[in-house]
Amino acid sequence: MKSKHTVLILGGFGFIGRNLTESLLVCGKYKVVVFDSPNLSADYIPPHPDLSVILGDFNSPADLLKVFSEHHFDTVVHLISTTIPATSNGINMVYDVETNLVPTLRLLSLMKEHGVRKIVFASSGGTVYGPAAAKTGGPIPETAVTSPICSHGIIKLTIEKYLVLYKHLHGLDYLILRIANPFGEYHRSEVQGLVNVALKQSVKGAAIQVWGDGNIVRDYIYVKDCVLAIHLLMEKNLVNETVNVGTGVGYSVNDVLSVISRVTGPLQIKRNPGRSFDAPEVVLDISKMRSLIDIRFVPLEIGIRNTYKWLLSHNR
Amino acid sequence: MKSKHTVLILGGFGFIGRNLTESLLVCGKYKVVVFDSPNLSADYIPPHPDLSVILGDFNSPADLLKVFSEHHFDTVVHLISTTIPATSNGINMVYDVETNLVPTLRLLSLMKEHGVRKIVFASSGGTVYGPAAAKTGGPIPETAVTSPICSHGIIKLTIEKYLVLYKHLHGLDYLILRIANPFGEYHRSEVQGLVNVALKQSVKGAAIQVWGDGNIVRDYIYVKDCVLAIHLLMEKNLVNETVNVGTGVGYSVNDVLSVISRVTGPLQIKRNPGRSFDAPEVVLDISKMRSLIDIRFVPLEIGIRNTYKWLLSHNR
Repeated sequence: MKSKHTVLILGGFGFIGRNLTESLLVCGKYKVVVFDSPNLSADYIPPHPDLSVILGDFNSPADLLKVFSEHHFDTVVHLISTTIPATSNGINMVYDVETNLVPTLRLLSLMKEHGVRKIVFASSGGTVYGPAAAKTGGPIPETAVTSPICSHGIIKLTIEKYLVLYKHLHGLDYLILRIANPFGEYHRSEVQGLVNVALKQSVKGAAIQVWGDGNIVRDYIYVKDCVLAIHLLMEKNLVNETVNVGTGVGYSVNDVLSVISRVTGPLQIKRNPGRSFDAPEVVLDISKMRSLIDIRFVPLEIGIRNTYKWLLSHNR
Repeated sequence: MKSKHTVLILGGFGFIGRNLTESLLVCGKYKVVVFDSPNLSADYIPPHPDLSVILGDFNSPADLLKVFSEHHFDTVVHLISTTIPATSNGINMVYDVETNLVPTLRLLSLMKEHGVRKIVFASSGGTVYGPAAAKTGGPIPETAVTSPICSHGIIKLTIEKYLVLYKHLHGLDYLILRIANPFGEYHRSEVQGLVNVALKQSVKGAAIQVWGDGNIVRDYIYVKDCVLAIHLLMEKNLVNETVNVGTGVGYSVNDVLSVISRVTGPLQIKRNPGRSFDAPEVVLDISKMRSLIDIRFVPLEIGIRNTYKWLLSHNR
């Protein structure tokens, strides 16, 4: 019998991490080690024979070293991010560098020392391209110019460059996934992610904040589709590629709110001035992903309906 | 009478900095403040009525704050780099981030707080593109893909992205200069920069280290031409552009050594295995620079001859 593939999920308690962990465990082919912060155990993953959990701080070299001393991994999936686009600018730029880029470089060094062969990295399809790529019109391919307008996007891009460098210098295989705007179950942020935040506000009976005229367009992907795409790309053993993970379809903020109101009933909306770090339109060209895996997307309204049911059942 | 333009040169004791300071002072239109490390005062710049010198550590927030508290600047020229391509990989990646990227972010924040309008940044034409851009053949334009194979190049590129972000968020004008391989007077490194290192070894009667077969090709630019180009681009008041600064002409390591031997007499050469971070060919497309300024380059042999004379007269 073939032994199971051991995967470390950095950020396994997080939004995508929690869903991906479930997906990998369900298929039965993986042993999963989750590393995440002890502060994030709200939706603690139920025990499973193929699951180990290590609590620690991604910024602590000792904690990270412990992870690699205790296990051997075939693949590391790096989903940790300490910033979100909206707060990454300003004085937080240095924080972004010190808490995302620096520990990722330590991680790469540890992976090299411990002979780990592959890293899957969650980059940000929503921020690495920036408005310059979008200006050319239509969905954005992986080859587009990358001119982020938030520190979060710059750091994601810089990490991508270091992954390419590690491949070049040390043969460490990478898979870079430029993920669009995911929404769905196990999302936690109170401020980031339009669909989930709007649904939460609606459940609370509170107003939804909208910045600008509501015409900015994004590529919203239901997290179960997003995680299925990641899982399928991992199964293909695709390496040393950068792949957009989105739906290829854009919805404006106003479109999304209109779909949400069909699910929840009328919404209270508070309109604020536009924000300088919001590109007008970011929709990903997913031709490359489609050429690699076969995936059919859940319609936006169904995804929103599922998320709403989950929110109500979790009373948040 | 128009008041003089005040320029801060970060790294004014360095190779390009020392030459640029001289060029700006000679033309009489600038007040120059040099900020550099007290360890670097070997070729201390002679006193000049338009020159102030502040000694300090670029990595010290207090030292940097002092600079901006004591002077108002129209332009900051950022030439400091704590790493070179050959040593920037390996464990030094974190050092590269912490000593180049982080203090540059602090610098940008200080510039914003103190109302400085413009930054000129010395990026690295030799490393930001990487072999992927060179593979397409011919000189590399500013629009080429950027896939560095050393940390030094990744950090230069990341700083470029933050400059674009600061323009977007705060209106801070930038001029990014992707400088090729400069050589000439006031060069100090014992390990970086083929022409100067080879000349120094020749003066010492020591062997010149060559990595690989000597066929890798670079765009060597005499530092006085390089600094004239920077000076002329600054005079044009060109902003929010990225410009290659090179000659557009490539010479192999063997070519260069052959020219040097015509100047110095026969050379001792020690050949070593190739290095993974050396792209085979990097020659810059300088059409953009040529469309902006009128410059005639000193022939390679003359530049080398001048450098050799300077080295002999400085006994190093």
